[in-house]
Amino acid sequence: MDCPVTQRHFQKVSCRTPPPKNCFCTFVSKQLGMFMEDRGKRDEELILPINSSLSVTLHQDQLKTTTTAAISRDFTEDRIWLNGREEDVGQPRLQACLREIRRLARKRRSDGLQDPLPLSLSYKVHVASENNFPTAAGLASSAAGYACLAYALARVYGVDSDLSEVARRGSGSACRSLYGGFVEWQMGERPDGKDSVARQVAPESHWPELRVLILVVSAERKPMGSTAGMQTSVETSALLKFRAEALVPARMAEMTRCIRERDFQSFGQLTMKDSNQFHATCLDTFPPISYLSDTSRRIIQLAHRFNAHHGRTKVAYTFDAGPNAVIFTLDDTVAEFVAAVRHSFPPESNGDKFLKGLPVEPILLSDELKATLDMDPIPGGIRYIIATQVGPGPQVLDDPGAHLLGPDGLPKPAA
Amino acid sequence: MDCPVTQRHFQKVSCRTPPPKNCFCTFVSKQLGMFMEDRGKRDEELILPINSSLSVTLHQDQLKTTTTAAISRDFTEDRIWLNGREEDVGQPRLQACLREIRRLARKRRSDGLQDPLPLSLSYKVHVASENNFPTAAGLASSAAGYACLAYALARVYGVDSDLSEVARRGSGSACRSLYGGFVEWQMGERPDGKDSVARQVAPESHWPELRVLILVVSAERKPMGSTAGMQTSVETSALLKFRAEALVPARMAEMTRCIRERDFQSFGQLTMKDSNQFHATCLDTFPPISYLSDTSRRIIQLAHRFNAHHGRTKVAYTFDAGPNAVIFTLDDTVAEFVAAVRHSFPPESNGDKFLKGLPVEPILLSDELKATLDMDPIPGGIRYIIATQVGPGPQVLDDPGAHLLGPDGLPKPAA
Repeated sequence: MDCPVTQRHFQKVSCRTPPPKNCFCTFVSKQLGMFMEDRGKRDEELILPINSSLSVTLHQDQLKTTTTAAISRDFTEDRIWLNGREEDVGQPRLQACLREIRRLARKRRSDGLQDPLPLSLSYKVHVASENNFPTAAGLASSAAGYACLAYALARVYGVDSDLSEVARRGSGSACRSLYGGFVEWQMGERPDGKDSVARQVAPESHWPELRVLILVVSAERKPMGSTAGMQTSVETSALLKFRAEALVPARMAEMTRCIRERDFQSFGQLTMKDSNQFHATCLDTFPPISYLSDTSRRIIQLAHRFNAHHGRTKVAYTFDAGPNAVIFTLDDTVAEFVAAVRHSFPPESNGDKFLKGLPVEPILLSDELKATLDMDPIPGGIRYIIATQVGPGPQVLDDPGAHLLGPDGLPKPAA
Repeated sequence: MDCPVTQRHFQKVSCRTPPPKNCFCTFVSKQLGMFMEDRGKRDEELILPINSSLSVTLHQDQLKTTTTAAISRDFTEDRIWLNGREEDVGQPRLQACLREIRRLARKRRSDGLQDPLPLSLSYKVHVASENNFPTAAGLASSAAGYACLAYALARVYGVDSDLSEVARRGSGSACRSLYGGFVEWQMGERPDGKDSVARQVAPESHWPELRVLILVVSAERKPMGSTAGMQTSVETSALLKFRAEALVPARMAEMTRCIRERDFQSFGQLTMKDSNQFHATCLDTFPPISYLSDTSRRIIQLAHRFNAHHGRTKVAYTFDAGPNAVIFTLDDTVAEFVAAVRHSFPPESNGDKFLKGLPVEPILLSDELKATLDMDPIPGGIRYIIATQVGPGPQVLDDPGAHLLGPDGLPKPAA
């Protein structure tokens, strides 16, 4: 993570009155069907998961969170703006991140690893963050945001140690987004969580054929019970406990093997099975939590019929804490599957805006495939598709024009 | 089960050329949130469940299957009519029932327990069966039908031993419908299934305040994956295996206690938890099975909010292999909950036909409750409600007018 750019950048940031610096972070990884740790925590305050997890970091060309952090002796208080709107900086998770980054900076200085930063530690910080994707669309925006925040704060406060804990304090899965490619969050064993960290399993260059399609389903009612709090799952679901202890470890090992060997067949099957099992434990929660909508279920059916037609696993779905589907496939299958989605969920008004991200050539479905899909179309069931791929970790933006904070440390007026 | 009526009836049926006899059976019990054994079998052919289960038999005044069976030396082949349409008598489960009932009759005769029936065993049988509820509505019509069939066949072939196996061969859960009230299906241990039988836990008179509301949701698409075959769950779901072995036995004991003590609080909670857990194992099946629709989930949400408003469990839901909800509650709560359902799912056209079965006085919802429910209404989401209660076991109809077969052994023309 500490690429030359970062180092050079770090030197600049560590001056007394830093100009606003911009840290360009990755959109948070989507679960590879591994258990979503923020669904169950062994420690709510430290945010320690009840099992390890694995995910892939998506490419910033399609989905990204941009965050600018600035510290100055002139700032009178910590402040934060999300998507242009100022938010309460006092919220516990945000405070936990700030405490943790300042602790690391203090530690770094006391270790004498760095030319002293006499004042900056006492400086207040201003943060502005923006997503280029709908925040509420259940696309893990908070994880992306906290990963980006941790990375930006580390730069302005002169910290270059492992940021897993900083990001984790904000949003568990955020720690995985600090790396590119395929990333594992090791649950760890220590009560203080020092060994609950993210590690890269394989770099973004490892599996160049892998593609990711995000199917954003039409805004529906809030998912049932999501407000109940995920901790409820740990407290009430016997299936979740069994899964975490008896099933996930072997699945982690198998998933790691699938990725290392680029075995899409096994990778896809395990991804789908684990997504289903995760949502099963949500349903076993009391009161039950259900993120999948009827449209989600039609997508699942579509994927299975698509694979049945081909006689092998060519696409795999996984769902986060929402109805949107994340489809994994290979580059040679993208065009046909997108056509299958168009066939089953005909775009309503926005036919032109239906496909975002990587270009996909339009093709015609074979009558055989249409017959196998055998679904009454659901017009407008899917709002749009984002076609993307595996991407790198956090990137630093040096272009001042990209900064979200002006020289005065306040958000620039929206262009 | 061998009530005087039955005995008297039996004597008549056992004559050489019996007139058509009519056996009036109960609508099959709905699951009390216990595992639905036909979702997983340890023996497909014998239909032996992977765990015990418990259910309640509903009252015939509201829901019933009527079956007439007749044997005659004049019949040249076995024939069966379901809801007026002749069906293939050769289907395996039907044949298994016929084989089993004839085996029992033969055994009974060889045991000399009965004045010999020299010919009737070789007689062919005609069967006509009708439901007074939508067959395809996922209201366990097949279980009701096979229970009724087993009962009627036993009468005409002169069998009065335990019919669990006969009914079970047709449809696993059918064996429970041979009894009234609260019925347990003991999974048994023997490979030959002789000890996999139904037993009454408590008679229908045991809990007079208990009420059952069946919420029939609007016909939606076929449930996802239901065609995949339930056996798939046993083969693919690790959660199902764990549930059956580690969780269900204790839940059976607790459910039995709740019923014996008429403890609605615990009864309702366990019913909901177990229904959710059953559907969780369906989702953990690969490919996944999902019976709950968005409407089902809104009903679940409604029930939890209704209970939250009252600060205790006043209603409990359970779902079979379909989107229809079965609500358990007590007589003092029926009116208010039905009003809550009307509020959340305003009847579209058939406002008058919205409520069937037991009479329910219309009442107005308090503004507080409306506020707690806080749901955007879904007009027409629920087609109608059937209000009923716990009922008795199979009943014999002596009124010849009720027979479905005429003197010629053929279905009477529909009146």
